[in-house]
Amino acid sequence: MRSLPGFRDFFPSDCARRNHLTGTWRRVARSFGFVEYDGPVLEPLDLYRKKNSGGEILGQLFSFTDKGEREVALRPEMTPTVARMLIAKAREYRKPIKWFSIAPFFRYEKQQSGRLREFLQLNCDLVGDDSPEADAELLALLIETLGAFGLTADDVVVRVSDRGAWMDFLAQQGLSDETKAREALAIIDKLEREPRDVLATKLGALGLALEQVEGFIATARPAFFAKLQENLAARGLNGFCALDLRIVRGLAYYTGLVFEVFDRRQERRAIAGGGRFDRLLGDLSDGKVSLPAIGFGLGDVVLGDLLDDVPAAKDRMDAAVAAAQSVDVYVIIADESRRAEGLRVVSLLRSLGCRADYPLGADKVGRQFKDAAAAGSRFALVVGEEWPAMKVKDLQTREETDLSQEALADWATNLQTLAP
Amino acid sequence: MRSLPGFRDFFPSDCARRNHLTGTWRRVARSFGFVEYDGPVLEPLDLYRKKNSGGEILGQLFSFTDKGEREVALRPEMTPTVARMLIAKAREYRKPIKWFSIAPFFRYEKQQSGRLREFLQLNCDLVGDDSPEADAELLALLIETLGAFGLTADDVVVRVSDRGAWMDFLAQQGLSDETKAREALAIIDKLEREPRDVLATKLGALGLALEQVEGFIATARPAFFAKLQENLAARGLNGFCALDLRIVRGLAYYTGLVFEVFDRRQERRAIAGGGRFDRLLGDLSDGKVSLPAIGFGLGDVVLGDLLDDVPAAKDRMDAAVAAAQSVDVYVIIADESRRAEGLRVVSLLRSLGCRADYPLGADKVGRQFKDAAAAGSRFALVVGEEWPAMKVKDLQTREETDLSQEALADWATNLQTLAP
Repeated sequence: MRSLPGFRDFFPSDCARRNHLTGTWRRVARSFGFVEYDGPVLEPLDLYRKKNSGGEILGQLFSFTDKGEREVALRPEMTPTVARMLIAKAREYRKPIKWFSIAPFFRYEKQQSGRLREFLQLNCDLVGDDSPEADAELLALLIETLGAFGLTADDVVVRVSDRGAWMDFLAQQGLSDETKAREALAIIDKLEREPRDVLATKLGALGLALEQVEGFIATARPAFFAKLQENLAARGLNGFCALDLRIVRGLAYYTGLVFEVFDRRQERRAIAGGGRFDRLLGDLSDGKVSLPAIGFGLGDVVLGDLLDDVPAAKDRMDAAVAAAQSVDVYVIIADESRRAEGLRVVSLLRSLGCRADYPLGADKVGRQFKDAAAAGSRFALVVGEEWPAMKVKDLQTREETDLSQEALADWATNLQTLAP
Repeated sequence: MRSLPGFRDFFPSDCARRNHLTGTWRRVARSFGFVEYDGPVLEPLDLYRKKNSGGEILGQLFSFTDKGEREVALRPEMTPTVARMLIAKAREYRKPIKWFSIAPFFRYEKQQSGRLREFLQLNCDLVGDDSPEADAELLALLIETLGAFGLTADDVVVRVSDRGAWMDFLAQQGLSDETKAREALAIIDKLEREPRDVLATKLGALGLALEQVEGFIATARPAFFAKLQENLAARGLNGFCALDLRIVRGLAYYTGLVFEVFDRRQERRAIAGGGRFDRLLGDLSDGKVSLPAIGFGLGDVVLGDLLDDVPAAKDRMDAAVAAAQSVDVYVIIADESRRAEGLRVVSLLRSLGCRADYPLGADKVGRQFKDAAAAGSRFALVVGEEWPAMKVKDLQTREETDLSQEALADWATNLQTLAP
């Protein structure tokens, strides 16, 4: 019996890959002072029926009726959950609120490259500050996260746009009605995917000329972008961002800055996307919690594919995958009458944070050395006749040294311990 | 809109608590040379309909039909998934296979203390070795995991039993038929929960006298136990285990050693449970992959409740929770004209693994020091007029020192970095 289509079994090397992604996400988010939250995998269906989720997502829900006759759904995205949590308790937290989560999501999508039905996403939100500095801080987190994998500005680009500039332009074109303006943005969102004649017809129905839209994209230079670049440059993050007004984001709730990350060769789907949603919390709470917010989501599937393409990133990932499946020390029991002493050594090493393994049964010393190498161990520590004296062999350099029982703890503490 | 009953929103302090549990689980399992795997949250319903899951679990499934007309279920336990994965690829791995996973599970249970409908579990399995040493290694992992939280043999007890001894006893009593013997074990499993007359009647129907069963429990001393204790003693793990033949475990597939962990005061449900299942993989693969195995599951709900009860464990958890929500350094921008330099400092600190925060907007220095304290920061680093000279204030000791730009990287590297 196999797993369901679009779902993954994570064998140890797959899981180590996944943990390289999620561990890096967590490390960088925490370095930015973001704190982690999470919500349930299963939610009331109504959470997604409300205006906060897009129509496309509603059609892809894994939804059903539970044994208590509740209509429920596997979460397809984090924003409705985090909005609920923020509305319930935003008052208790210092502003700006900087939250992140790392969690699985579920969408019944057509099987295609870069899409799975269960995937992981890093979601980061900065809430309670609508300044350009907040925009820059969130984008810096996104860029540093990508950089932590070994990706550079030659590998990825953050295409940055501004819904505010679009709304101004559309108003100038006579589309001051917000619903109509959003309809126009939904069409413009498909600019890179639909034929020009289809786009022209759809825009024409709203009284817009495709040429005007293209002209705006080609010539508009919203003021925010230079300031954003300046802030990022102070952080040493030059060259990652490009102004690109073709990005408008499909979801209805965005209000200002919006962005999507792509590989430079534009061969893949978006790696990440997000934007400012300054009105969503107020709208969902009937004005009780009116906090501006900006956030992004970064998935594991397209990112993982890209890391495979970029040699520096792949090397880093491969090293992490190898480290996660190896041990630091393999204790060789060269004399079965010293098994109890061997166990004591193994226990001490483990309690000091070393990953240590040993043979469960009696075996020839040569075989045990082979097992140590097969376990990817860096050191073999021989417990035998000479006890309480031991020998340590570095399995990379083949160097052998003596080790006394008294010196063991210090030696272990100095070891490169648990891999990240 | 609230989360569903039995499901949890993890606000930052809840999430830090959860991560204290899962982080400790992962750290100890890896120290034992176990490697991590995972499977899908959603599985084909048939995976649980087969003989490997118990009847109780089948009645508690969150199951439904997906948009592709597949009968699916949220996973209620890990064993069927890991069995599928082992059967598919066990040949590719060195034996013994030492695998662990940390994952959410879903059961539609009656709302009661210690039970939720979505919970986390650490699952550890040691596959391919049926020796008593393997039993001891797995139990040592379980005990060291509990010990890593600050729990001692005064707080928890591993009640150890042996299905083999029970099967021998039942055979002596004329129950050599395996199905009948399992029926008897299912009754004996309820020895501590059902009235004596009910138990006597049920056992009587199988030709067993309750007094004989109680006599066996009181007097039998299976030989394995002394050896197990000896092995654990060599590891310094005395006093955690008690022979207790009342433990038989409900699931049908166990074959030898079985065990459950309880708080010493026996006030709570089982914290963890497991045992040997030497025939399951062979049975599920029609003999293709006949590997012995022993494993345990340890949930987050009862364990979390217990950690709250035990002061030493609670202190440790509270410290981890506080650390997860604080930063290491708060950069104070004392002179707005030095904001770019402040950003550069913040970026450097973060890239060196420090958790660093700073004010997004201009603010008085006194207010920034208050924000630094509110962020739980250990240090305030002042960037201002004196740039490139800075001042560092230890917010615990109030000690203030000068720091040059050149010395910054070394200072940051020596800092206590990311909390575990």
